[in-house]
Parts: sequence; C-alpha cells; structure tokens
Amino acid sequence: MSFELVVLGAASATPTSNSYTTSQLLKMREHYFLIDCGEGTQKQLRRSRTKFSRINHIFISHLHGDHFFGLVGLLSSFHLLGRTTPLTIYGPPKLKEIVLTQFRAAGTFTSYPISFVVTQHKVPQVILETDSYTVNSFPLKHRIATTGFKFEEKPLKRGLNKQRADELGIPVCDYHWIKEGKDWTSDEGKVVPNAEITFDPPQPLSYAFASDTMYVPETAEYTNDVTLLYHESTFCEDKADRAKQTMHSTAKEAARVALDAGTSHLLIGHYSARYKDLDQFEKEAKEVFPHTLRARELHAYKVSEKGVQVKNLRERTHEE
Amino acid sequence: MSFELVVLGAASATPTSNSYTTSQLLKMREHYFLIDCGEGTQKQLRRSRTKFSRINHIFISHLHGDHFFGLVGLLSSFHLLGRTTPLTIYGPPKLKEIVLTQFRAAGTFTSYPISFVVTQHKVPQVILETDSYTVNSFPLKHRIATTGFKFEEKPLKRGLNKQRADELGIPVCDYHWIKEGKDWTSDEGKVVPNAEITFDPPQPLSYAFASDTMYVPETAEYTNDVTLLYHESTFCEDKADRAKQTMHSTAKEAARVALDAGTSHLLIGHYSARYKDLDQFEKEAKEVFPHTLRARELHAYKVSEKGVQVKNLRERTHEE
Repeated sequence: MSFELVVLGAASATPTSNSYTTSQLLKMREHYFLIDCGEGTQKQLRRSRTKFSRINHIFISHLHGDHFFGLVGLLSSFHLLGRTTPLTIYGPPKLKEIVLTQFRAAGTFTSYPISFVVTQHKVPQVILETDSYTVNSFPLKHRIATTGFKFEEKPLKRGLNKQRADELGIPVCDYHWIKEGKDWTSDEGKVVPNAEITFDPPQPLSYAFASDTMYVPETAEYTNDVTLLYHESTFCEDKADRAKQTMHSTAKEAARVALDAGTSHLLIGHYSARYKDLDQFEKEAKEVFPHTLRARELHAYKVSEKGVQVKNLRERTHEE
Repeated sequence: MSFELVVLGAASATPTSNSYTTSQLLKMREHYFLIDCGEGTQKQLRRSRTKFSRINHIFISHLHGDHFFGLVGLLSSFHLLGRTTPLTIYGPPKLKEIVLTQFRAAGTFTSYPISFVVTQHKVPQVILETDSYTVNSFPLKHRIATTGFKFEEKPLKRGLNKQRADELGIPVCDYHWIKEGKDWTSDEGKVVPNAEITFDPPQPLSYAFASDTMYVPETAEYTNDVTLLYHESTFCEDKADRAKQTMHSTAKEAARVALDAGTSHLLIGHYSARYKDLDQFEKEAKEVFPHTLRARELHAYKVSEKGVQVKNLRERTHEE
C-alpha cells in the first residue's frame, strides 16, 4: 500500500513571486488531510487539481502567518462552493477566534459546520482516531506554541489465500475470523494454522510533520520509526547561529532527527528566502541521513514499503 | 501629467488557478495607494515589481474576504522586510480587531507603526488630505458596510513662461507669486497680466474606485467628473437578477454610472467566475459608455488628459 504527500508550499516566512509558504496535502487511506495553510494554499490546491470537497480535516501547527494566512480564504471558498460536509480544524487555542472574527465581520457564516479541536503543545496527544488511522499531535520547540502531527495507518486485516482456502473447503462465513488472524478448525476437528491460509498484510505506513522547530532530541522520540518524516530545515550550516536564534533547524539537524528516529525517509523544506540554491539543503542533510529528499512545490511524494516516487504535478497543471 | 493604476486582481469571490481577487495599486503624484487587498496581493505586487516600501496608505472598501484576505500577510511581510515607516490603513471599524488578533496570536508586533482610520459608510468624508491630493470615501450599497474611494489631485501652480519673464526683466524673487496666479507690476508701475507670463498648469486628474455595490444613482454624484472611474461589474445582463439579489452591478449598470457621472473613462472588473469570456463585459458596457476598458490583471493603466495607455506587466515579469 502507499500514501501520497503533495507539497503545496515549501517556503518560509513570506511568499515570493514564485514560491508559496507552508502547506501540504496528505492522502492516506482514501482520506485527504490538509496540513498547514499558508497564503495562496487554495490556489495551489486548484493547481494540483485537488477536489476541495475531499478535504474534511485541516491541521494547523502554529499561528505564525506563513502557516495559516490562507486558511480563512480557503474556508470562505468552501462556503462559496456550497459545501455542506462538516469540517474539523485542529490547531492552537486562538485559531477559532481568528477565524470567527473574520466571518462575523463579513456577516457571513459558513454553509457547513466547522468543529475546532484545540491542540496543546506540552505533551503528545491523540487528536483523531478511526478504524483506519490515528493522528497524534506532538510538541515542537519554537517561538510560540507549536505542534507537529503524526499520521499512522492502522494494520489492515490479513490477506486470505483463496486458493488454499478452497482446497481445504473453508466456508465463506469463516473468512472474517481468518482475516483477523484466527486459525481454522474443520468439522473433523483438524486445526489449520492461520499462517497456512493467509498472507501478511502490507505494513502500515506513517507520516510525521515537524514544522516549525529548533532541533530537539525529543522530536526523534515522537516520530520514531515513521515511514516518512518531514522536518523543517530553514537554514544550511552557514547560518546555524541564525537557526538557533530564530528557533529553527538546519538541514543537518533535520537529518539528525531522522537518523535518531530511524525513519525510512526524510523530507526537508521551509527554506529561508536567503538561499537561491536549494540543492544545498539536500546535500548537507544527505551527509547525515542519505535517504533525504527536498520538498518541491506542486510535487507529489508517493510513499510505499518500496520507497518514494516523486511526480511533478506542474507538468499536468495549467500554469499562468 | 498622469497617474497610473496597476490592476493586481480583478476576480470576485474566490481566486482561481489563474486569477486574483480585488486589489489595485494607484500611483498618483509620486504616492502609492493600495486599494483593497485580496489573498495573494503581495505576490502580485512582487510580480508587478512594486517596491513594498513605497506603500504608505492602504484602503479597504469592505470586509468581504475577496477584498482583504491578503492584508495581514502583506503587513507581516512588511515587518519581515524590516519596515520602519509608518503605515495608515483606512477601512471599516472591525478591520483593526481582525489585524491585531492575528498579530497577537503570533506573539509578534510590527516593526513599524500602523494607524487605523475608520471609514463609515453613510456619508462621504475626507479621509486624507495633503497639499498635493485629497482622498474621500463615499457610500456604496452592498450587503455589508462598504465605501468607495475617490483620489483627487490638487491643481498645480501655473507654469512660468521663462522667456517672456526674461524679456520683461522680472526678477527671480517674484516667480513664486506669479506661479500662484498674480499679475506682475514693474518698478515703473506697469502691470503685466498673469496670462502673459504663465502657462495653464495641467488639469488635475482624479480616480474613483467603486467596488462592491449594486447600481445606485448616488454613485454618479460621488464620482462626478472623475477622469477614471472603476466600477465593479460582477455580472453581464444575462444575470441581472443575480446581480440585484447579491447587491452587485452588471456591466451596463457600471456604464450607466460612468455616463451619469460624466467621467472621461470607465474601468470595469470584479468578474464572476461564471463567465469564461470576459470581453462580453466590455462589449455590453460600451453599448452604454463607449470609453470603457476592462480590468486585466497585471496590467497598468496610465491615465492623462490625452487618454489611457495600457501596458501588460506580465511581459516583463517572471511568471512561474
């Protein structure tokens, strides 16, 4: 199995004429999760040909503008498009007030219900759980209250070896238990071990988003063993002082977290506009953690047990 | 003389993959006035190669998102760029709260002072006046409190006919009064009429911005005789009912205002996304008021006594 991460914006601080601030769309187990929502996110969502109606959960890491200034515009567009499906927004305590103040001033309320789930940044917590996946928030260390988010698939049921089941004459009504891992007992009392009639299901995959944060060893604990870790890398080593001062990370620090966490892959982004050559970030990170990719806007990262496939969505989108 | 209007966004309601919501930059008498600030305005300002530091006055017509969702992002970028020059924002009463709530949540305050001037939508009022120009707000009729803005150059002093002044032996110290329109009296008591030694100064020009509004005859009174009137035209005649219902105008209604106001030129915009063919707006408006242009994004409209010159700024900007 696989999940897909679409990078909508990978710049820090302020959009430029050809870059957008942080936003990502995670497509996991048929669900669409929007993570952070910098100014212009709705434009990038359109360019990536995302159906707005498929987004039911939005996660905001913290209240610096480059991570949420596109939110109210997106919510407003949902309304104008006639959305009725409920939406849940996960974010810091003051987010609700910011959103509602603006809707109140416009004299409009949304055509769809919005629930706000308040995150808190001192301890990790489960903020969303279904039969299929779990989402945790976890503490990051930045200038204001900030959380990361971890999205984990739950294990699927075991795959049935249909051919072997037929040979043994197993009735369809027993499939349900077998897929849950139970052995099968025939009417004659013969026990067939589960391993003989099932395949291992695909490994559950996971994604963790860590932005913005200074380097802290705890991030590796919270994101332990995830398949893909996104960790901000605002600066390269030449500006390590500036990183510390602004409570951001360098590419090498991001890589150190990935190494300590034992993640399969690392994605870096949130580049300072001071850098023209973004390959430098990837180069420095790879010295510490070879399985590093750099976030490119309007690129999709398809992650499976086999690795990460990168697709440029610009090639099929209409560009101005 | 001339002024220049740069259209940054001309779409209504919601940005699409290749259009921006309302924002315009007026360059008049060396001053830069930003009028409305839809999401992504800062990106369009960069694309039009505008120096952010030259903007000292921002005017917000009303609190529907497509007219101000880009404001906080722009203010934030001013801060990140290290701005120290004071900024004045003119807009409806709740704008200040909306802006400050977001800065408070981010724990940041701007590096430069912001003054808020509250507009009120019941009567026209002078909101800014210098020796060089006057800015009025005037009432519009929309679903929420909305004002238009009128920018008027003040008359320049008369031009001195230097050659004739030399022939008459007029001393330099008298030039000041002559340029103000006074006759000149020689030491011998001979009176030279002002018209003999000066030229007429260029006519003062004016610009009025009327968005969003339904058609009301009063708009023509408030914008009487302006050189260029921008009037919203969200719909064409086929959706005249929809225009009434949403308190917007059709292209023909915009043209009727221009005709009644006796403006030299009309610029229309704020197009509904329902229309693919935007030339239709211009065609319908021209049937009523021939001197109509349609607003095109990233185009500059240079307005003088001689007419309007249109320049496509995309040709010289870097496009993604």
